[in-house]
Amino acid sequence: MLFTIDKDSLLNKIKIVEKVTAQRGNVQPVLANVLFEAENNVLNLTATDLEISIKAKTTVAVKKEGKITLPAKKLLEIAAKLPDKPVEFSLNEDNNIVSITCGNSKFEIIGISAQEFPKIEEEISDGTEIEIELDPLLKSIKNTVYATANYENRNVISGVFCLIKGNKLEMAATDGNRLTRIVENIKNNEDKSAKIVIPAKTLNEFVRICSFISEEKVTFIVDKSRLTLKTMSFAINSRLIEGEYPPYEQLIPKTTANNSKVSRDELISALDRVSTMVNDRTSIVKFMFNDNKLLLTADTPNSGKSEDIIDCEYSGENLAIAFNYKYVLDSIKTMDAKNVVVGLNGSLSATVFRPDSQEDYICLIMPIQIR
Amino acid sequence: MLFTIDKDSLLNKIKIVEKVTAQRGNVQPVLANVLFEAENNVLNLTATDLEISIKAKTTVAVKKEGKITLPAKKLLEIAAKLPDKPVEFSLNEDNNIVSITCGNSKFEIIGISAQEFPKIEEEISDGTEIEIELDPLLKSIKNTVYATANYENRNVISGVFCLIKGNKLEMAATDGNRLTRIVENIKNNEDKSAKIVIPAKTLNEFVRICSFISEEKVTFIVDKSRLTLKTMSFAINSRLIEGEYPPYEQLIPKTTANNSKVSRDELISALDRVSTMVNDRTSIVKFMFNDNKLLLTADTPNSGKSEDIIDCEYSGENLAIAFNYKYVLDSIKTMDAKNVVVGLNGSLSATVFRPDSQEDYICLIMPIQIR
Repeated sequence: MLFTIDKDSLLNKIKIVEKVTAQRGNVQPVLANVLFEAENNVLNLTATDLEISIKAKTTVAVKKEGKITLPAKKLLEIAAKLPDKPVEFSLNEDNNIVSITCGNSKFEIIGISAQEFPKIEEEISDGTEIEIELDPLLKSIKNTVYATANYENRNVISGVFCLIKGNKLEMAATDGNRLTRIVENIKNNEDKSAKIVIPAKTLNEFVRICSFISEEKVTFIVDKSRLTLKTMSFAINSRLIEGEYPPYEQLIPKTTANNSKVSRDELISALDRVSTMVNDRTSIVKFMFNDNKLLLTADTPNSGKSEDIIDCEYSGENLAIAFNYKYVLDSIKTMDAKNVVVGLNGSLSATVFRPDSQEDYICLIMPIQIR
Repeated sequence: MLFTIDKDSLLNKIKIVEKVTAQRGNVQPVLANVLFEAENNVLNLTATDLEISIKAKTTVAVKKEGKITLPAKKLLEIAAKLPDKPVEFSLNEDNNIVSITCGNSKFEIIGISAQEFPKIEEEISDGTEIEIELDPLLKSIKNTVYATANYENRNVISGVFCLIKGNKLEMAATDGNRLTRIVENIKNNEDKSAKIVIPAKTLNEFVRICSFISEEKVTFIVDKSRLTLKTMSFAINSRLIEGEYPPYEQLIPKTTANNSKVSRDELISALDRVSTMVNDRTSIVKFMFNDNKLLLTADTPNSGKSEDIIDCEYSGENLAIAFNYKYVLDSIKTMDAKNVVVGLNGSLSATVFRPDSQEDYICLIMPIQIR
């Protein structure tokens, strides 16, 4: 294997794949490595933790084809520190040592044979392929993935529900205490559909990688148990979560008795201040709506209490309702709107938080019963 | 106690004192608190860990005098989040509760009586007072404190040697493997002198606090066992380290057989790159000087090796010498110079690193013997 790549491109590709490599102390040392495959003037970098695999692709001048695996963390550290010059990779196939040369800097890294790298089901051969725009997908992921249940297991609510049908992308997540749902318009020219539950970790990785690329389209390739999300420069492959997703639509109230409109920035600042005196065990902040004012209060025994008043539009009866303030912050922070609407059905009913400007994104938060 | 203070001033004063408060789980809960004393339109904030105490002073409108202690971390969190408006502190002396009001935000914090706060020997009554400029002191601290021995105990080399005599400030530090010494010109009008060893922690705190203030003068107040460093807006008080400081001057070579001049930036970058393949147990980087070139190499068994070549001025015999690269980086990173001079007396002798532009700041580093 012998090829030359520019420093920025090398660093970019390593950053795309390195996060899924295993940490030190793993039973299979090769899982801490990135697979380099140089063939037909294309360099493929692949990493996997056996649940998720990521492949990054780039065009390079390949002088001799070949493949090897190299330690991800070390490579990242070296690539980040290299001068801004062409980088030559040269593999000695007799001892698996790769020489990396860049300007006056030279490294010899002991690799592990590509034969030891796990075979990855990276291409789903007979799956459904759907190409959509990247932006609505990224927006939908950011507006749902935070609300998934934080389970390590394969419980269906540890993933995000995803439905592509006609020209709509619908995503939803819940952890039992809150529910988020977003519907975005997409161009789905071939009218193919998919209904899947994607692990939160896969989506978080996907969003992270998208910060390193600038592309407009993404292709879903789906079969019964696996998903590939593919763009021009990378592909992420993951298992899907099997099982029936809870019928969440019936939880969303059709109407709300009272709606309050409040400035998103003011609500975030006030919650942030009030939360300084919140009880760490419960995270409860009490909301009191009364005559166009919203009073927020929190207290911790033996420590003290806090309160803040902000203006809002509210003309219903006086209402006191308590929430885990973190759920409220999580949801309104993801809203791209000047004002948010709080849809209330009494102090014991699930409450709707949504951007004033968009009906199709809602967060439903269960209140906490207080004395 | 009743006073009003503006938000930025409050936050600034809390930041000055809060770092020396004790962490949670401390036997004396009051040590996690900041003492507030409002008197004669002056607000004093004091914190201590019993070794070091820090007092910050500011003018405020005091409507009612009084004192109380309040939890430092909570106060810092609240002050940072307050809107940019006047902040009113009001103490209820019956229950030690302080109401903090700022715009529409209100907090009630349960304090601990000021009586429980330790008495601090903050003013040294019959000590020597020396006023000098702040800048040469800060520079001298930054150029020495990193080289102190990292002991928790009161060993003399866990502190920085400090000599004020005539119009010179001399500071030195060593951990046995390296030595730094700097001599700076000062204006010392009254020609008073002091020769003390200051704990590294005290100096690190002093440098940290100086990033929050803009002043030009500092006063040393020194007696046999204690030191106060005092500016207009704050004072830090600390024990001194007793014992005779090692006679370091005799360790500094009068002459060096060969001097090499090298670009500071290039040496930092090259060391940084080469260190990626350094053996974590030893941190050894080998320096080879040969005919106006400096070759740096490092290696770790079973992992790989690295090398880098940079230009330098060197016309002596070929010389190979090895250092803990961290010591070299520590020293040259503190040098404010385009080029550094490496003064060599053979591969087993202490080596001098100094800025090309300044003779009075030197770092002496012991090499490591290699095969």
